[in-house]
Amino acid sequence: MRVAAIGLGLTKFGELWNKSLRDIALEAGMKAINDANIGSSDLDAMFIGNMSAGRFCGQEHLGALVADQAGLSIPSTRVEGACASGSLALRQGLFSIMSGMHDIVFVGGAEKMTDISTEFATVGLMGAADEEWEGFHGLTFPGLYALMARRHMHDFGTTHEQLAAAAVKNHHNATMNADVAQYPFEISIDKVLNSTMIADPLTLLDCSPLTDGAAAIILCREDLAKKYCDTPVYVTGSGQASDTLALHDRASLTELKATVDASKAAYKMAGVSSKEIDVCEVHDCFTIAEVMATEDLGFCKKGAGGKFIEDGNTQIGSKIPINTSGGLKACGHPVGATGIKQAAEIVAQLRGDAGKRQIDGAKTGMTHNIGGSGATCVVNIFRRF
Amino acid sequence: MRVAAIGLGLTKFGELWNKSLRDIALEAGMKAINDANIGSSDLDAMFIGNMSAGRFCGQEHLGALVADQAGLSIPSTRVEGACASGSLALRQGLFSIMSGMHDIVFVGGAEKMTDISTEFATVGLMGAADEEWEGFHGLTFPGLYALMARRHMHDFGTTHEQLAAAAVKNHHNATMNADVAQYPFEISIDKVLNSTMIADPLTLLDCSPLTDGAAAIILCREDLAKKYCDTPVYVTGSGQASDTLALHDRASLTELKATVDASKAAYKMAGVSSKEIDVCEVHDCFTIAEVMATEDLGFCKKGAGGKFIEDGNTQIGSKIPINTSGGLKACGHPVGATGIKQAAEIVAQLRGDAGKRQIDGAKTGMTHNIGGSGATCVVNIFRRF
Repeated sequence: MRVAAIGLGLTKFGELWNKSLRDIALEAGMKAINDANIGSSDLDAMFIGNMSAGRFCGQEHLGALVADQAGLSIPSTRVEGACASGSLALRQGLFSIMSGMHDIVFVGGAEKMTDISTEFATVGLMGAADEEWEGFHGLTFPGLYALMARRHMHDFGTTHEQLAAAAVKNHHNATMNADVAQYPFEISIDKVLNSTMIADPLTLLDCSPLTDGAAAIILCREDLAKKYCDTPVYVTGSGQASDTLALHDRASLTELKATVDASKAAYKMAGVSSKEIDVCEVHDCFTIAEVMATEDLGFCKKGAGGKFIEDGNTQIGSKIPINTSGGLKACGHPVGATGIKQAAEIVAQLRGDAGKRQIDGAKTGMTHNIGGSGATCVVNIFRRF
Repeated sequence: MRVAAIGLGLTKFGELWNKSLRDIALEAGMKAINDANIGSSDLDAMFIGNMSAGRFCGQEHLGALVADQAGLSIPSTRVEGACASGSLALRQGLFSIMSGMHDIVFVGGAEKMTDISTEFATVGLMGAADEEWEGFHGLTFPGLYALMARRHMHDFGTTHEQLAAAAVKNHHNATMNADVAQYPFEISIDKVLNSTMIADPLTLLDCSPLTDGAAAIILCREDLAKKYCDTPVYVTGSGQASDTLALHDRASLTELKATVDASKAAYKMAGVSSKEIDVCEVHDCFTIAEVMATEDLGFCKKGAGGKFIEDGNTQIGSKIPINTSGGLKACGHPVGATGIKQAAEIVAQLRGDAGKRQIDGAKTGMTHNIGGSGATCVVNIFRRF
């Protein structure tokens, strides 16, 4: 059975100090419910992606929290796979409809990251990596991705300018997505190279920020979709794979094997190849992550990602537009919400609702969402007919 | 499509200070894989129930952690619904097989609670309740259930002796489950009444303990089950419901509405009523919780649960044996593992593998798993044919 996305909702991403986790979850959720032309009583179940509200807000049990806030008593389940939690929530919603158990399902993601100190957030985020082998010894996420960047530069001659090109592009795209994006302003290659060094070679503008935000999508059985929506978009493929938590256990530092495996599974299920993808949101938690994703998803050869991006192939209007939303870099990265925000961007693109960011004639889109330093990857493929 | 349970594995529950979270997850998992007569390469996916490793161990991303520890790169997803996380993991495994996406799935639960101070664990556990309305103001879980117990006593004349009868029975059952149970020894009504007061009227022996432990079950498509197993047990019903996180928002303090709703859904799916349940594991995080569950699941009338238990109706060999494993009270309550442990007990009972605890001729069994103070409830029904 095919599953359709019939509604989407997003909060503004940013430092939302006057809104609580439950406020933003409800805001995104109600937007999605209204967008889908349903009532909340039409929902059969909810799946909520969230990474670390326990550490960030003292609140676990996000499934029940969101149902409670919406005044619902339907099944509601939190799903977690670090920064891939949102896409995993979408995947569980997909399974639950495909299983015949549910007809209309709410999949959402929410994270509140800026109510605690940056230091504590950085430590908290290391729960996505290997606490015993990496976090305990003082490694941070910028450090993990800096190791990958250094090796990529060593093996393939990738330059910092090439990494920076991804950030520059994503900030440009975000200027056309100011309702959501945390940083909807232009930057330059020079500005990236000369911003504060975080973990050599990655500077501040190579890194996605800490962000509060929420996103929601309404999924629905294919045969019901047209009742609610003139432009349903279908989830035609979904792949997920795991890898070691710790970098030291991996055969390669320049490839995320989970991306390769998850995308193969998603392409196979959808019956498409990378060539047929018209628009793609990839997980650019750091600029090097976008470079590796561009390669690992098959848009260019291993090692060629830096030049591929620098040459403009991933800009809007070019070969394969990547991160039209502004990506994690410029939209912000509320970790549990990111996967749903990516899906919302693709659904908007395939409906023709992406405004100035619209990719003309986009029919097939893809999201690529990473947990941690690549221990989880989820790739979902969407299509309009 | 029906789904079978073909293997189970449990660690000893207790203060496992010489084993890490990953050690116990692997131990339970390998036991289940061996019990199912499969190899780990036969697995298509994993679903891991865990409530709060982020706060208890600094480690989120438990799905990838367990796959990593098992040397697997298959999809692996953490599911959380506070103390109901284990049953939710089982439910997602069920959906994933029913959807046709997977054939053989690992569902597990693990929690490590004793490596931090009791005070911090108590605070951490409040992440399962409403942090803003309850935790922030100093309420604890014993306090929440004490409020329910006081109201139950007020409305129905329930006595502390009746509550204590549940604990006495469960400790007795645990003496026959010493390989798993944290406290496999007899206690008496007097001992419960005279143990340290925790939150009036609940004393120490009304409360389940802090526990380390892990549990795993292998689920499989019905048509493959006989290939691996002579005595497959089928999951014939599954229900889940949500309620408000905070007690003050509920119409009743003496009924968990989520239990009523989830059990109705599970009974309907399985095509049975409470009368046909031969053995049941209920969520006795506190003695009052077992009293309320006995009522809310339909084994006796609202308000009659205390007397029903006191009269021996829920003992092994009596009307409806409840918590033959020893329950959360005497087995211990490693929160994310509890739901899977409950399912493992029911599967063992239906296979006829429960040793001295065996319920003769048990054909239909049920698990009842609560998240928090009742904001999530999952009821799963199992059957042998």
